[in-house]
Amino acid sequence: MSEQSRGPGATAFVPGHVTGFFSPYPDDDPGRAGSRGAGVTLSDGVRVTVRPADGDAPRITLDGDHLPMDAVTTVLSALDVADRARVVAESDPPLGTGFGVSGAMALGAALAANHAFGCERSANALVTLAHRAEVMAGTGLGDVVAQARGGVPIRLDPGAPTHGRLDAVPERTRVEYLALGDLSTAEVLAGDTDRLVTAGEDALSRLVERPTLPTLIDESRRFADETGLVTDRLADVLSAVDDAGGRASMAMLGETVFALGSGLSDAGYDASVCRTYDAGAHLVAD
Amino acid sequence: MSEQSRGPGATAFVPGHVTGFFSPYPDDDPGRAGSRGAGVTLSDGVRVTVRPADGDAPRITLDGDHLPMDAVTTVLSALDVADRARVVAESDPPLGTGFGVSGAMALGAALAANHAFGCERSANALVTLAHRAEVMAGTGLGDVVAQARGGVPIRLDPGAPTHGRLDAVPERTRVEYLALGDLSTAEVLAGDTDRLVTAGEDALSRLVERPTLPTLIDESRRFADETGLVTDRLADVLSAVDDAGGRASMAMLGETVFALGSGLSDAGYDASVCRTYDAGAHLVAD
Repeated sequence: MSEQSRGPGATAFVPGHVTGFFSPYPDDDPGRAGSRGAGVTLSDGVRVTVRPADGDAPRITLDGDHLPMDAVTTVLSALDVADRARVVAESDPPLGTGFGVSGAMALGAALAANHAFGCERSANALVTLAHRAEVMAGTGLGDVVAQARGGVPIRLDPGAPTHGRLDAVPERTRVEYLALGDLSTAEVLAGDTDRLVTAGEDALSRLVERPTLPTLIDESRRFADETGLVTDRLADVLSAVDDAGGRASMAMLGETVFALGSGLSDAGYDASVCRTYDAGAHLVAD
Repeated sequence: MSEQSRGPGATAFVPGHVTGFFSPYPDDDPGRAGSRGAGVTLSDGVRVTVRPADGDAPRITLDGDHLPMDAVTTVLSALDVADRARVVAESDPPLGTGFGVSGAMALGAALAANHAFGCERSANALVTLAHRAEVMAGTGLGDVVAQARGGVPIRLDPGAPTHGRLDAVPERTRVEYLALGDLSTAEVLAGDTDRLVTAGEDALSRLVERPTLPTLIDESRRFADETGLVTDRLADVLSAVDDAGGRASMAMLGETVFALGSGLSDAGYDASVCRTYDAGAHLVAD
């Protein structure tokens, strides 16, 4: 029927996702846990191929390196294919710098394994599996549902599709980014999150009131400044973009600057360039 | 910020949508009215450009012809730009043959006018406007929400985003179609709809149980046969596709055959060829 069914494996593309601001909502049920907030999905993303396992090849690789990844393993186990699936991922943005690469691997593995092994799950069921796995692994709270939607997602309510609720800014734009280093999502979430909740809720209500790209980037920047997550290196880059008349903020969570339009290159940085992505995660032709 | 903001107008692409089966759910509130069911969104769709009105040019054109269209006018009025917007649409599939062209024009006009005139509405708000306008015009019940999602949408609950609930078959496929003529959606919905509701609910529960492309096309075909909507001309084409070993059904509602894969060309027809569309309706670069 579809082109993918001919091959022995399947590949999914999952857009990268940069969160601009968020409020964490932990819950004992990982399907209800998540975050409210907003960000941009990116044409720079992750291609995830799932094939029947062959011999002693590593089970999960990212850009050629063997990489144990709890969220991916959890997804494969939930689909009952953990002992016979091999996952090969290639990512445009680097892992651990705030692009939702781990969520993308979980969601991409779910979509590709569902096709490759004929698991017959619905889209919502696969997003739910990946969201739960990502929450349980502690590597993200809102990337998976945003990556499943595409565009410029607004996460109105936390959680997997049954519980969460999304809207979006109905615009598209060029996005530039500069990854300086990594920040531990788990460490930030283990700290005092009261400031995040307050600043994140304020930003969200202002974006809902006026759902435009300028609001998104301005509220993201305000959130970054108010929550004290901006490192010295980030502050230097943000100031330079400001001075060049651009708009930029910090990826939540990574030591990464993202700018809408050409803010980083206008300020003289050799930034990566991509666009917001119109589609959510999807299978691709072999 | 975004590329579109430079020009005096904006363009949106909205995928075509063929419903395979459905149950109508009328409601006094057009935001709650709609349909449950499933279908495929298509890479063949409608490009809708909205520009400030110039002189006496026709307000709404489709493929160069002046075309009054209530749903589009309602959308523009709700955005308070009806007296100053011009809508130019170009469609791959023909109007009135079951591809959701009228819904696409309403949704495309909403997205493009929102951008062109700086209306600052959210994606859900625009989808809601277009859905309500389409329901009030009587030209469709479920196309707009499906076209806003993309992919292979399953409409679990009727209505605009606040009320409705969508899932999807997480697959993609080649789609062929052959438009023989038009059927009046309004006439079918004005008739005895009990058969539609019963057959549509049965089909939906089977697709939810096993959300795959073969289930979608088989349940669509069963729905078409059970509801007596298949014309003689349609029956001839469907039989020919069956004989060639393919799978096809009828677009709800149009005198149109659609096939997943190469069912129509395998049976010797000169069919239009497209694909399921990965993204929902979105702005495009100028």
